[in-house]
Amino acid sequence: MILRRLLTIAVAATLPGALWAAGEVTQFTLENGMEAVVIEDHRSPAVVHMVWYRTGAADEPPGVSGIAHFLEHLMFKSTDDLENGEFSRIVEANGGSDNAFTSWDYTAYFQRVAADRLGLMMQMEADRMRDLVITEADVVTERSVVLEERAQRTDSSPGALFNEQMRAALYLNHPYRIPIIGWRHEMLELDLDDALAFYERFYAPNNAILIVAGDVEPEEVQRLAEEHYGPLQPTSDLPERVRPSEPDHIADRTVRFEDGRVANPYVSRTYLAPERDSGAQEDAAALTLLAEILGGNGTTAVLGRTLQNEEGRALFAGAYYQATSLDDTSFTVLNVPVPGISLEEAEADLDRVIADFLEIGIDPAQFERIQFRYAASEIYNQDNVQGLARMYGVALTTGLTVEDVQAWPDVIAATTAEEVMQAARALFGGDTRSVTGYLDRPAAVEAEEATQ
Amino acid sequence: MILRRLLTIAVAATLPGALWAAGEVTQFTLENGMEAVVIEDHRSPAVVHMVWYRTGAADEPPGVSGIAHFLEHLMFKSTDDLENGEFSRIVEANGGSDNAFTSWDYTAYFQRVAADRLGLMMQMEADRMRDLVITEADVVTERSVVLEERAQRTDSSPGALFNEQMRAALYLNHPYRIPIIGWRHEMLELDLDDALAFYERFYAPNNAILIVAGDVEPEEVQRLAEEHYGPLQPTSDLPERVRPSEPDHIADRTVRFEDGRVANPYVSRTYLAPERDSGAQEDAAALTLLAEILGGNGTTAVLGRTLQNEEGRALFAGAYYQATSLDDTSFTVLNVPVPGISLEEAEADLDRVIADFLEIGIDPAQFERIQFRYAASEIYNQDNVQGLARMYGVALTTGLTVEDVQAWPDVIAATTAEEVMQAARALFGGDTRSVTGYLDRPAAVEAEEATQ
Repeated sequence: MILRRLLTIAVAATLPGALWAAGEVTQFTLENGMEAVVIEDHRSPAVVHMVWYRTGAADEPPGVSGIAHFLEHLMFKSTDDLENGEFSRIVEANGGSDNAFTSWDYTAYFQRVAADRLGLMMQMEADRMRDLVITEADVVTERSVVLEERAQRTDSSPGALFNEQMRAALYLNHPYRIPIIGWRHEMLELDLDDALAFYERFYAPNNAILIVAGDVEPEEVQRLAEEHYGPLQPTSDLPERVRPSEPDHIADRTVRFEDGRVANPYVSRTYLAPERDSGAQEDAAALTLLAEILGGNGTTAVLGRTLQNEEGRALFAGAYYQATSLDDTSFTVLNVPVPGISLEEAEADLDRVIADFLEIGIDPAQFERIQFRYAASEIYNQDNVQGLARMYGVALTTGLTVEDVQAWPDVIAATTAEEVMQAARALFGGDTRSVTGYLDRPAAVEAEEATQ
Repeated sequence: MILRRLLTIAVAATLPGALWAAGEVTQFTLENGMEAVVIEDHRSPAVVHMVWYRTGAADEPPGVSGIAHFLEHLMFKSTDDLENGEFSRIVEANGGSDNAFTSWDYTAYFQRVAADRLGLMMQMEADRMRDLVITEADVVTERSVVLEERAQRTDSSPGALFNEQMRAALYLNHPYRIPIIGWRHEMLELDLDDALAFYERFYAPNNAILIVAGDVEPEEVQRLAEEHYGPLQPTSDLPERVRPSEPDHIADRTVRFEDGRVANPYVSRTYLAPERDSGAQEDAAALTLLAEILGGNGTTAVLGRTLQNEEGRALFAGAYYQATSLDDTSFTVLNVPVPGISLEEAEADLDRVIADFLEIGIDPAQFERIQFRYAASEIYNQDNVQGLARMYGVALTTGLTVEDVQAWPDVIAATTAEEVMQAARALFGGDTRSVTGYLDRPAAVEAEEATQ
């Protein structure tokens, strides 16, 4: 075990991303269409068992925002075989832990348990894939829970509310504009019929991906999967996964959200950007490196180095790019100015640093460092088997393949500084329109604090 | 005939809107659920025959924007009884004219013919309500037609493109955000299945309103309607007409669209606003009068008087409010500055004039004049039987009743200046967030012209 880890790091030091540190990855597909990925990791006798559905908030019908996430909650209620909440109690009684999460492109359920409990996990997960039993009472209870979740995570957080408004402004047509948790006024109306309709439409073996990672042998996983998931009937009318796409962005937009709870006002600018596409990850690799170079970790990145370190004009400046996404994703730059600098000045700072960057280009030494660091971090990440399982799950539910995942470090390593600059020019210098966001405190709050 | 018209004007002069100038209005409903409104006008031996469907662009499934309007075009193709284009040829051969239109809330078809041809019109309209026959070839041809329509009406017009962007920015969740004509990239993909699915879902007598206006007797119209529309089967699975509604608007937004073809740059500001609701038209009446007072016809309105006449800072300044709408509508103020005044200055001018208006209030004499003028114009409008038919059609497909239409002038007349000011304060002075739009020429174009 130790040998393998050393080997990985040694390889990474010479050729970033050229080798994949993970244990063996095996794939198979059941007759009912359920795909499976097995990631071996024999360092500890544990296993992560995940079922990912190729459905998320962006697959919701109009008007019932939040239903994908709401259903995720309801999946912990009864089935024909299990009592309300019994699923998690059994996992716990077996020394494991379980949870679930929902995004725009996927909904996933997972348990981490001793490897010899894998069959039990499959048995229960297969059960709730087709035999969920939910009642009006479950809906009433759990609706309160998700509303409280929204209250805590979104409504009490100016930053989260601001992000919600920014997405709604960025996407003119695509459902990525709608919050995963749901618009509050629509969450209040979510009912049993909505949940069951979503469940029946999307929860089926031919819309699911099994991911098992840990101290397992692929043959045994396949045998167990055939035993537990094999008998499930596929759904015959699984809808094609096509969401409304974006028209050309022809107008620049701004969003100004003011909230008395904002501690540090900031300005951000977001562009629609290409995502990783299967077999064509080059653009996304260039944008991934661009985000690292402009605003990656620490203050060696261009925005942080200039605005934080050299000029002392920013508390923080960064760049974000989400490469894995089924449809068009976004690229964001952000500047949190030091007190006394207005958001308009902060915006001008952001523009200036980016304009200089487009002019000067990438420092070759910095490029190499960042490319290496990114590849290395990808490899280090693989030391965590749960993170690795999640990485495959995200990839496979956003249109990528196991091969794409394994090729990604190579694609990153093959990206040149010139390609990154081309991506930068296309993003910032071209006809791409953007959404600029101002998260601020109301003038009245500012004035009050000034007089104190 | 002349007597009636004089009478109408005389009444209007003493009590605006207290009387309805139209001929008798009669209503009936067929057994299959088709509603009908008959408006008598015996001044000329003509009739306007309209069928309105309670479906429009805001009822489209996601991803197929433009299908409501596209289907409207396809409705002029074949049926089981008529050849391609024969419908309009028969109308023309009978000395009539016909057309159709689509909005977010409705799709309507109409013919204007000699009154004795009403039965023939009903026969043909009933035929295409249920027996449309469209082919792949029709779709290919007509798709080119609607794409060309978009090219001419929208893509070649910076103002139309700007309005499209403004709507997409205003509505965060409601489908009013999507253009009636459709997003071009989605129009390219509209196919036969989309059109037939929309047709089968929404075109049925129980989703249609018949409006006949002109030289007819209600009993005869009903007899003909029973003969021609009566045999049509209602659809059993007509969807409930509920669209996704707006979350609270918590952030101010801007849209900046620059186009070299812009002749006169301008700034506009749009707010979400209540629409006319059945039995509760008071808020909409106050906003209707507010739009007239701020920016109605001529330069007696507040914005035009101040910015155009007194200050000479605007080429045009106005206000718009669309009162009839099934769901939340919008209120817009707009300022087209004289050359040399920037859009930022124009925006400040707009803010200043509105702030002064909120401070000073409405001049009572102006209020009376405007209230009278609006009521009188509503009454004059009724002299046009086609306009009257259209008014009922719009009302009945946006949630209003014949009684609401007839009460509207009274509601307008009963609105007080204080109620208008309350509406103004709620709109401009409250927590309502807005979308500010800048339609401008690119700086490069400006610079080039300056050097010429």
